[in-house]
Amino acid sequence: MIKAGFLQFDPALGDVAGNIAKVDALLDAASDIPDLLVLPELALTGYLLKNRAQAMDLADTADRGSQVEALQRWARSTGAVIVAGFPERDRDHVYNASILVTPAGDRHVYRKAHLFLNEKDLFDPGDTPLEPVDVDGVRIGMMICFDWYFPETARVLSLRGAEVICHPSNLVLSYCPDAMRTRCLENRVFAVTANRCGRDVASDGQELRYTGTSQITGPGGEILLRAGENESVLGAVSIDPAAARDKWITPRNGMHEDRRTDLYGPLV
Amino acid sequence: MIKAGFLQFDPALGDVAGNIAKVDALLDAASDIPDLLVLPELALTGYLLKNRAQAMDLADTADRGSQVEALQRWARSTGAVIVAGFPERDRDHVYNASILVTPAGDRHVYRKAHLFLNEKDLFDPGDTPLEPVDVDGVRIGMMICFDWYFPETARVLSLRGAEVICHPSNLVLSYCPDAMRTRCLENRVFAVTANRCGRDVASDGQELRYTGTSQITGPGGEILLRAGENESVLGAVSIDPAAARDKWITPRNGMHEDRRTDLYGPLV
Repeated sequence: MIKAGFLQFDPALGDVAGNIAKVDALLDAASDIPDLLVLPELALTGYLLKNRAQAMDLADTADRGSQVEALQRWARSTGAVIVAGFPERDRDHVYNASILVTPAGDRHVYRKAHLFLNEKDLFDPGDTPLEPVDVDGVRIGMMICFDWYFPETARVLSLRGAEVICHPSNLVLSYCPDAMRTRCLENRVFAVTANRCGRDVASDGQELRYTGTSQITGPGGEILLRAGENESVLGAVSIDPAAARDKWITPRNGMHEDRRTDLYGPLV
Repeated sequence: MIKAGFLQFDPALGDVAGNIAKVDALLDAASDIPDLLVLPELALTGYLLKNRAQAMDLADTADRGSQVEALQRWARSTGAVIVAGFPERDRDHVYNASILVTPAGDRHVYRKAHLFLNEKDLFDPGDTPLEPVDVDGVRIGMMICFDWYFPETARVLSLRGAEVICHPSNLVLSYCPDAMRTRCLENRVFAVTANRCGRDVASDGQELRYTGTSQITGPGGEILLRAGENESVLGAVSIDPAAARDKWITPRNGMHEDRRTDLYGPLV
């Protein structure tokens, strides 16, 4: 068993230092930090960046920058594996990425495959494989926000062995939490959707309101925990990742085994 | 616009003539028959067949037998395109199949790809492609009951142009109606899930209770109509199949166009 959780909060647009301080305070106030903790998409920069130059300006590389250093510090100080969204710079590329950091200093990056709306102006399309990583015997996959909409994302992660899908998000529509029940049910995996709450207001007055309701979903599609729409909260539950290794929903129906890859392509 | 509907009712196990009479009465009582009418899986035989010999014994071929003849008669007399589940015999094979019959006498058969539990003892696995058929300019796909569980089924049908997915079912678990919202949302298609109600009791005393709640779902994941759990009812709504041709959920995000088939296989 491990404890898996999300940190739902309200980052301020463009204020990385302030957002780091906000997370510091939330972690200090928490009585117990889970073994695996997921933060939202673009957790420390805010979402509604105005253009590619600003995304590039706020981006870290995978091994250097105030965001990844803060994430590494939290992993080390709490002993948790931490997953969070951040803008990642790699030479002249910038990605809407997610990083997994371990207390020991291992880092893995996933770059968002399916970019939403004007993200297409800000970020390069992700080029990392949908491949889970093994952390202390638990196979952890990452996908980011709008990736949920494409059944291929979670399907490929689960076919490659993901037991827990970490899902940093900045959701503005209400569909996702219920749809994650289907994503988990069809793949027999756990998912931790860490959404933000509050709103972003861009310099031109454009505003986005985020839907909160971060959720931990079980392999039977059950909602293990769902946060409120507008609360800053660290939510966590105990889960047994081994339960996601059993793909049999009846003694004769396996969610991987029963796929008819003679009638459709194998995906992986 | 067309009117699409389901006929939810309670077939008696093994009593084909009685079930045909039951549907006759339901259609006679209906004030209005939709252009497209979907009946449940194994609609005229009941579901809980005891073995392969009984399935074979009750099976029709695609062009001969009391079930397909009744379906053809209803299509002709009402002017509706009718889709219904039936056991289909083809030489020494027997399939859990669905047939689409038109008033003009065209017939198309789909054989269930993903067999549930003990269906594996009764039926051969389906060998027909997941390929929609064009009926009067509307592209109609078929899948049967447990096929919903596999995201590949509806995905492939929609990638091949299905606008309306007809989904004869005998559901015994409660997940499907809500999951169909995700199936339609992720593929921007309509779906008509025709479930049965009531129960089957086999000769050995085994009993299955069916969940009703037949549903018509729109391409935005909206529930257009949902039946009660235990009513015999013909339910129908007007739908515009052309709405399913538009896969764009934002001006820049198409549910087909945004697929990252460089990161995962194309499926079709």
